Amino acid sequence: MGSSAVLVTDDLQLRALGTPPVGWRHALWDELEAGAVPEADVRFVAIDRRGGPARRRRMRKLSRVERVQVLSVGYDYVAEYVPAGARLHNAASVIAETTAEQGLLGILAALRRLPDYVRAQDRGDWVDVDDPTSAIPASMLESLVGATVVQLGHGVVGKALARRLEACGATVVPFARTARVEAGRHVRPLGELENWLARADVVASALPLGPETRRFVDAAFLARMGDGALFSNIGRGATVDTAALVAELATGRIRASLDVVDPEPLPADHPLWRMPNVLLTPHMAGDARSTARDLAALVAGQVEAYRAGRPLIDDVTDDLLRRAEQVS
Amino acid sequence: MGSSAVLVTDDLQLRALGTPPVGWRHALWDELEAGAVPEADVRFVAIDRRGGPARRRRMRKLSRVERVQVLSVGYDYVAEYVPAGARLHNAASVIAETTAEQGLLGILAALRRLPDYVRAQDRGDWVDVDDPTSAIPASMLESLVGATVVQLGHGVVGKALARRLEACGATVVPFARTARVEAGRHVRPLGELENWLARADVVASALPLGPETRRFVDAAFLARMGDGALFSNIGRGATVDTAALVAELATGRIRASLDVVDPEPLPADHPLWRMPNVLLTPHMAGDARSTARDLAALVAGQVEAYRAGRPLIDDVTDDLLRRAEQVS
Repeated sequence: MGSSAVLVTDDLQLRALGTPPVGWRHALWDELEAGAVPEADVRFVAIDRRGGPARRRRMRKLSRVERVQVLSVGYDYVAEYVPAGARLHNAASVIAETTAEQGLLGILAALRRLPDYVRAQDRGDWVDVDDPTSAIPASMLESLVGATVVQLGHGVVGKALARRLEACGATVVPFARTARVEAGRHVRPLGELENWLARADVVASALPLGPETRRFVDAAFLARMGDGALFSNIGRGATVDTAALVAELATGRIRASLDVVDPEPLPADHPLWRMPNVLLTPHMAGDARSTARDLAALVAGQVEAYRAGRPLIDDVTDDLLRRAEQVS
Repeated sequence: MGSSAVLVTDDLQLRALGTPPVGWRHALWDELEAGAVPEADVRFVAIDRRGGPARRRRMRKLSRVERVQVLSVGYDYVAEYVPAGARLHNAASVIAETTAEQGLLGILAALRRLPDYVRAQDRGDWVDVDDPTSAIPASMLESLVGATVVQLGHGVVGKALARRLEACGATVVPFARTARVEAGRHVRPLGELENWLARADVVASALPLGPETRRFVDAAFLARMGDGALFSNIGRGATVDTAALVAELATGRIRASLDVVDPEPLPADHPLWRMPNVLLTPHMAGDARSTARDLAALVAGQVEAYRAGRPLIDDVTDDLLRRAEQVS
């Protein structure tokens, strides 16, 4: 009788899995790629962007895999490579709260001009907020208190962000692909967005990337936003038409706080870097000191549940299948 | 029969007050200072730092004033000048939420290294968080999720900050001058702080300035904080021994996010400006685009209530009297 194998992406996960039970083997993807693990043995894989597209293409051929654990919230980059019949799990329970935290930070920092204060600190300049002629007068300082935030995407990240925004005194109006009532909020369908964009002080996107959402934020969308409004993105860069965003930002009419862009990494000479009305972070919203360790613990817990026949968490298989129907 | 006068600090407040009723006069402090308003007429004054100490000394001699409306949360700078028998009101209902918002922003920005990301943006540098050799590796990114925040001061600002921190997944342990249970939180007395400081990921101060709290944060306090912990201050600069703070920060052992310092304005050559482990904003936490207008509305509402014999809001007279007892 052959053995069953679990493939993981790093040593931290390998250690978290502990000693394999009889008949099981725990291995790194590197070992499969070196030919040391038979493809037919693999039952459970953890995967992320490491190993690049070659690793994902390889995954599609692992015909006896039953579970794919992706180590991020978004799984757009693995969607087409999940072996037929395998269930897909994401890392929402680990990543969502940190991602929402960074989303809140990006919005607050832009509203309250923190980048300009950092630059003033570097100059040793005590900017007098009460002086209308200063570099950052009070008239430039906005607030979430009493603000209206139109939110795109109300999945696990969207809900975690909404909770934070509401605690800051904002009114959150969530939109998603499917209308519903969730966590006490009336979630509107994306099709009804048009009438709301002009009323938003902040448009905060946590949209996943899929056929419905690719370049969803286009020139017409941005043109409907009100003067001075802020566009925030912690979802996926390709949900935005970057050229249209750059064009609208270049007029100075709106502002942006972006953790994700298209393309990534953003080339050093891209205009987004230098725009005074843009705050840009390099797709780090999901990351924190504890993330790698928490992901390893997630993988270990999922593998243990899988072997024991218990339910796994963060199952996104239904969403994956729904997306596949839309593509076909 | 003489008329009664209301003194305010700017034209926005004057306009918000509207036309005075018969027997009343609305005037700017400037008019009193020019001799155009008899001191004995003044019943209600609005005051802030504008006009400097000379204006405050003048206020103390206005023997028939019944209400003093200070246009900030803290009133340390007017405390000794409130005329005997007058009641004192602060602007907590206008200023507290914005102040707490800035407090949250300063904490999040420091934990998640936003100043370093702003500087990376200015260089056009897409920092790879997954690369341990990059300028800002994931190991440098902290989070409020699961963090312990020891909070000093649980007044209106402290409560507004605690609500935000809790929505971000932090456990808030509040301390104040008087132990109590408030808003569902067990507020511990400052005297019990010693055992808690080492357990804090963040120490967040919103302490008012008074005889009990002047230089409360001293060398011994800071030495008890854990390695890598963050000290945040949105209360008053003089609650901290600045020299002790600079000394502790110079070791690199702790970090700080400060909106208030001692002295203010901070001289351009002060060491705090250039410390890599310090995020510094120039006492702007209470300010936003809407603040001046909201303060004018507050003054108008308070004057109207006063004339109608209805209760005024934000009454801090009892706290003022308690403070006076401690001094004597």
